[in-house]
Amino acid sequence: MEIFKKASEMQAWSRQIIKQGETICLVPTMGYFHKGHLSLIEKGKTLYDRLVVSIFVNPTQFGENEDLDSYPVDLDNDLCHAERLHTDAVFLPSKNEMYKENFQAYVELANLPNHLCGLSRPVHFKGVATIVTKLFNIVMPDAAVFGQKDYQQLRIIRQMTKDLNFDIKIIGAPIVREDDGLAMSSRNAYLTPKQRESGLCLSKSIEKAKAMIKLGETDADIILNKIDVFINSFEKAQIDYATLCDPETLETVKGIKGKTLFALAVNFGKTRLIDNAILDPEQ
Amino acid sequence: MEIFKKASEMQAWSRQIIKQGETICLVPTMGYFHKGHLSLIEKGKTLYDRLVVSIFVNPTQFGENEDLDSYPVDLDNDLCHAERLHTDAVFLPSKNEMYKENFQAYVELANLPNHLCGLSRPVHFKGVATIVTKLFNIVMPDAAVFGQKDYQQLRIIRQMTKDLNFDIKIIGAPIVREDDGLAMSSRNAYLTPKQRESGLCLSKSIEKAKAMIKLGETDADIILNKIDVFINSFEKAQIDYATLCDPETLETVKGIKGKTLFALAVNFGKTRLIDNAILDPEQ
Repeated sequence: MEIFKKASEMQAWSRQIIKQGETICLVPTMGYFHKGHLSLIEKGKTLYDRLVVSIFVNPTQFGENEDLDSYPVDLDNDLCHAERLHTDAVFLPSKNEMYKENFQAYVELANLPNHLCGLSRPVHFKGVATIVTKLFNIVMPDAAVFGQKDYQQLRIIRQMTKDLNFDIKIIGAPIVREDDGLAMSSRNAYLTPKQRESGLCLSKSIEKAKAMIKLGETDADIILNKIDVFINSFEKAQIDYATLCDPETLETVKGIKGKTLFALAVNFGKTRLIDNAILDPEQ
Repeated sequence: MEIFKKASEMQAWSRQIIKQGETICLVPTMGYFHKGHLSLIEKGKTLYDRLVVSIFVNPTQFGENEDLDSYPVDLDNDLCHAERLHTDAVFLPSKNEMYKENFQAYVELANLPNHLCGLSRPVHFKGVATIVTKLFNIVMPDAAVFGQKDYQQLRIIRQMTKDLNFDIKIIGAPIVREDDGLAMSSRNAYLTPKQRESGLCLSKSIEKAKAMIKLGETDADIILNKIDVFINSFEKAQIDYATLCDPETLETVKGIKGKTLFALAVNFGKTRLIDNAILDPEQ
């Protein structure tokens, strides 16, 4: 397994692979791998000749009061798993390598970030779109895999890829959950045992919303009011948002007609967890 | 010579060329070719295996009160010259092909647009950076040629290419002038005979500034005051800006120490002309 710290070295490797007529799949990560990451790597590896994993905690997608400095790191573990899963190359740049002095070009979307997580994290998706653009240009992959847990991120990357004509297939991979339903996240490591218990309110809310829709409820306000009461019954759970919206535009819906995104973010002390599901009244 | 109207067709052609191990050079244009454009095409053709010329009047780089609707067009002439100069492929998309419904991803720079033309054309460089990003992803060239007449544009493209890690060499090509010194521009077609005469104030200002520096003048205010008086002596010439600045940051300078950019924009009725030169007190 190759490890590249310089963009130019990564680029040279990719150019060589492309010249050989082989395909490349990129899995962009911020490291601290859990089973969710590993599922992305496994997915990418089966579909393309070569698999590149990037590990970079991207500072531009963190707000000033967010957890950039405390974001968990375990590089040895990450590299061990990457190798075990037959990753061909790991791109492991420093912050200075990715954001050189006088850096000033950013990619930004006009509408999709003005919903869900974008409301409480105003710079987040600008940072995400910018770093993913850079990674696309450095790794030059045929495809890239992103987790559906970060639904809004996946939607934004699909839109950006289309709008900016990146000739890259975007693959969404399903949410991986703990046995009790908690969506896997590097940030779960922050949770105290009490918070970990309360963290189940997210996946349980999804089950609750699904059940209400199955029973024929189509009024978004009625569903969301019940979800609010439900989440507030969990200790230390503070709702950032819990919303029903159009899976394409992310605009909130009043009534459940077709496939609808149920997305929520809940704070537990300083730790913010997210979860989501597509609800389908036809199913 | 191939002509492609769809991004996907252009991309497929480029992929094939890259697979063959050949290099591609892109010359992005808005059409209505003059000798300046032709010099870019000639430059690109000599250095790379394949030459792609794009012709697209990009709406997002025009402000609301600018000349998008009246921008001159002569496609037959453009294609004739492109073929004569052995262009391999022309990319000729429609506005709908480049900006599909719900388009919303833009590339923007934080500092470089806040100078010179960016001050009177606030959306211009966002449009330029976005369309060039799209063209880079569609044509996937090894190099792209831009004219030095649009100095700020060239500087912004160089910065964007570096910041976003495009593996593309940016080539700047010298300004091409009419016999009397007027810099070639598609917008020269708008000028009345009187305005055409006054248009010489731009290139003459450059000669004047060069002469002052040659005589040892190093005070930017003194030079620019004389230039202002000089330009105002031309009929119908209204200065947008005439400034001395750092060629890298585009920030204005007080004293002429090393190489300095002299850039100016002058309005003649509704027509806005620009010109520039690097002044070097050591020469």
